[in-house]
Amino acid sequence: MGLLVSREEKKEDTVIRVGNATIGDGSLCIIAGPCTIESRGQLEEVAEGLAKTSTNILRGGAFKPRTSSYSFQGMGKDGLDLLSRAKAITGLPTISEIVDIADLSLFDDVDILQVGAKNMQNYTLLKALGKQEKPVLLKRGWANTISEFLESAEYIYREGNHNVILCERGIRTFETSTRNSFDINAIPLLKEKSHLPVIGDPSHGTGVSGLVLPVSMAIVAAGADGLMIEVHNNPECALCDGFQSINLEEFKLLENRARIYEKIRNFNCTSI
Amino acid sequence: MGLLVSREEKKEDTVIRVGNATIGDGSLCIIAGPCTIESRGQLEEVAEGLAKTSTNILRGGAFKPRTSSYSFQGMGKDGLDLLSRAKAITGLPTISEIVDIADLSLFDDVDILQVGAKNMQNYTLLKALGKQEKPVLLKRGWANTISEFLESAEYIYREGNHNVILCERGIRTFETSTRNSFDINAIPLLKEKSHLPVIGDPSHGTGVSGLVLPVSMAIVAAGADGLMIEVHNNPECALCDGFQSINLEEFKLLENRARIYEKIRNFNCTSI
Amino acid sequence: MGLLVSREEKKEDTVIRVGNATIGDGSLCIIAGPCTIESRGQLEEVAEGLAKTSTNILRGGAFKPRTSSYSFQGMGKDGLDLLSRAKAITGLPTISEIVDIADLSLFDDVDILQVGAKNMQNYTLLKALGKQEKPVLLKRGWANTISEFLESAEYIYREGNHNVILCERGIRTFETSTRNSFDINAIPLLKEKSHLPVIGDPSHGTGVSGLVLPVSMAIVAAGADGLMIEVHNNPECALCDGFQSINLEEFKLLENRARIYEKIRNFNCTSI
Amino acid sequence: MGLLVSREEKKEDTVIRVGNATIGDGSLCIIAGPCTIESRGQLEEVAEGLAKTSTNILRGGAFKPRTSSYSFQGMGKDGLDLLSRAKAITGLPTISEIVDIADLSLFDDVDILQVGAKNMQNYTLLKALGKQEKPVLLKRGWANTISEFLESAEYIYREGNHNVILCERGIRTFETSTRNSFDINAIPLLKEKSHLPVIGDPSHGTGVSGLVLPVSMAIVAAGADGLMIEVHNNPECALCDGFQSINLEEFKLLENRARIYEKIRNFNCTSI
Repeated sequence: MGLLVSREEKKEDTVIRVGNATIGDGSLCIIAGPCTIESRGQLEEVAEGLAKTSTNILRGGAFKPRTSSYSFQGMGKDGLDLLSRAKAITGLPTISEIVDIADLSLFDDVDILQVGAKNMQNYTLLKALGKQEKPVLLKRGWANTISEFLESAEYIYREGNHNVILCERGIRTFETSTRNSFDINAIPLLKEKSHLPVIGDPSHGTGVSGLVLPVSMAIVAAGADGLMIEVHNNPECALCDGFQSINLEEFKLLENRARIYEKIRNFNCTSI
Repeated sequence: MGLLVSREEKKEDTVIRVGNATIGDGSLCIIAGPCTIESRGQLEEVAEGLAKTSTNILRGGAFKPRTSSYSFQGMGKDGLDLLSRAKAITGLPTISEIVDIADLSLFDDVDILQVGAKNMQNYTLLKALGKQEKPVLLKRGWANTISEFLESAEYIYREGNHNVILCERGIRTFETSTRNSFDINAIPLLKEKSHLPVIGDPSHGTGVSGLVLPVSMAIVAAGADGLMIEVHNNPECALCDGFQSINLEEFKLLENRARIYEKIRNFNCTSI
Repeated sequence: MGLLVSREEKKEDTVIRVGNATIGDGSLCIIAGPCTIESRGQLEEVAEGLAKTSTNILRGGAFKPRTSSYSFQGMGKDGLDLLSRAKAITGLPTISEIVDIADLSLFDDVDILQVGAKNMQNYTLLKALGKQEKPVLLKRGWANTISEFLESAEYIYREGNHNVILCERGIRTFETSTRNSFDINAIPLLKEKSHLPVIGDPSHGTGVSGLVLPVSMAIVAAGADGLMIEVHNNPECALCDGFQSINLEEFKLLENRARIYEKIRNFNCTSI
Repeated sequence: MGLLVSREEKKEDTVIRVGNATIGDGSLCIIAGPCTIESRGQLEEVAEGLAKTSTNILRGGAFKPRTSSYSFQGMGKDGLDLLSRAKAITGLPTISEIVDIADLSLFDDVDILQVGAKNMQNYTLLKALGKQEKPVLLKRGWANTISEFLESAEYIYREGNHNVILCERGIRTFETSTRNSFDINAIPLLKEKSHLPVIGDPSHGTGVSGLVLPVSMAIVAAGADGLMIEVHNNPECALCDGFQSINLEEFKLLENRARIYEKIRNFNCTSI
């Protein structure tokens, strides 16, 4: 017997809707925003800039599971309040990472709950998220196989929450000139093996702002249902991961080209 | 400034005592027992066998974070009750894995709380364990660097709980003939960089029962403060990880030889 | 001082021409053909099929460095003779792997000499290839960094042969559901760091025939100068790597779509 | 059918003798010397120092396959002449790396030919070495599986040269605090799978001079037939790999302790 999240068990693509955004219907869903919410000014500047583009969902981290306990751990509840304001202003649905199910009530106005790579096998959290109703975006652990990734999605799915989005964000390899190695094979492989939507995160997948645009194009061409991009109003001064964030100008170019690739891949014609 | 868990901040070795066992004082602490508690009969047969050896601490898993949600997830509270009985019978202090801080009260009679590799960066759990008093054995994630491992230990330590034990249990590599590649370099490197006790788990580190003995000897020779060994009364029928478990006869040979290496490494003489 | 193969030392792209094919001028150069030349019938069926498509260069292995000494090692000189015939029939320039410089004279009618991943750091071979005039396609070793890859290219380049093509073909990681993990980041990174042409090999990069098409599209979208595709008239019966070869029908679909992506990426416009 | 190098095909350990040294008979063979021969003074100072210890074989590199073509590539023939002198003075048999079979005649006075990790799958070289009579020490490639390692040994062995020594020297992983991760599992695994002698190289296996001693002890305890150690008269000034070389004083301590472990592992007794 296959997993409930597998194509064997369900042929049709799972389609997830939040606000005006749709993930998994063949279109390209663009999720963008700062890695970390730092202040009202920062978040709103980015959010308002994104609202003028074709961005579908606004991202912003408030609870940050940082490798070092001495790094900025996020604004917590205050950050989520700012995200709520930005949502009200822009009309964009939102996504933010949850690290402790005890915080769930704080996420009332957040549309999608994100589980980060470090918690991909935190089954306590996954099971709890399977018992509530908001869609969950599950990031692949940086050293987890495709098979383990789907097994983790199953932990959420079989508890009753079928709105799970899979996110490839790069794997850890021997290569040192990039932060991670984006596993492009994972995009079509996950689409083949599972009916769940699959998106790619080139910001973590490269860790180098200059590579975010070309790798985004690759992700779209490979058939992903979406992109998740770190955008900052001032990457040089970002409190977290500035080296992999792009600014609004760079994002506009990226988004523009991504939409062209989106049209092309759905053409299925032999000439243009 | 270095981490609180670093040698820079504290020169003397941290020594941890539970019951009659001591970890970190230069002696070899042997932790042994079944991967998973399956029944009273199974646990007591193993525990009583171990009690006749030089085993220092009894291990037994009751909450198992399994990759597949369809695998046996452990006996939970009932398993911990059995572990308590085995402790009473044998007089051995015990260790068991915790995956959810909400379960803490169930671990009242457990001497050391284990955090598994999958939860090494579950900072919610680490911070909570830093606020209680039982010693914590922290396993290195299979794709985490030494630096990230120490940063995770710091999450526990700086909350006030200084009784943290570091456990190397193999890393994930391209090699497929073993389950993991035991990172022997990590043993002396961790001892150099940190004052915390360092132990090795050759059962997960090899994933092959026939390799557990020679790799155990290597771990002792490399200077580890302890070994953590999966022992089962009937490895072929184990509900979890039987392929890497050894039986009591094999364990006696291992323990016997490990004690010889323990003496030798502390000799510091030039001939015998 | 940077390497001679670096952008620092030479800003303009290196463009390589063989027969009617051009690599490195912004167009997409498609290299296709069987992994291994098996017979005149096999090679000519594939070559004639490819000649009806937009394929630019015909590939065919005659000297095969196989992991097992008991596997088919290629037809050697006879294979190159067949490749020569196929070239005469189709007019396509050819590429084939060389493993020993002593064989060089056998490659007189071959247009590009390929160095396989296993020989990426066989400096004896690289230096010798730097002293002759045919273009060299250098494959990245499966566990070599971008930096080591460029250092190996330098071994050829500084001997006087400036016609070096870099080929990303997947790296070895922990993932087991694909043969290698195609390092898509490497495509834009190599283009940024070096002036040499960069191509991608999705056949080895995935090792799964069903993934070759989507990953090819990703490679083109990421900005590669070319694709290298294993095509077989009957993949199920191939003597080498049949599981990652596609047939002529599949190739036509791939090539067709790749040409669309080629046009799009060069548009630099904001709508279509 | 198994490989000729496998235990299935030959139960008894292969024992190799060069000069007074024996490899594979249960004793510990210590190979030591500088990574690279730099001058007569340097080599003879190290060699004479080693001759006063229990060192069995003198190592010294003359042809160095360096990652960068701009790094010192070794003294070539002159280096081998110096090695010959050192052999005459000390009476120690010698080992040196060969990278091109065309150089074979220069190695007349060298006792063991080494194939480096970068050439582990240079089958042209392996086959040629199988056709001559000197013993060959084959280093495992840093990203090659145990299975591929044995297949490469088979390339030499089946040509008629049965004197092949396997050398584990660390594998490439994500860890950055050591140069490689020494795969300690490989020692007992290779001993189990093959009848060929197995040695360990902790100098490359750690890349950190301070870790060479403890990891050497681990290698001996795990059952290796030998150690290969980089020793320099002045590590800080070494032209190659000084950071992983130890000096003569450090080596004496290492050798002394290694001999104790050698005795212990062969005891097979239950107390000392």
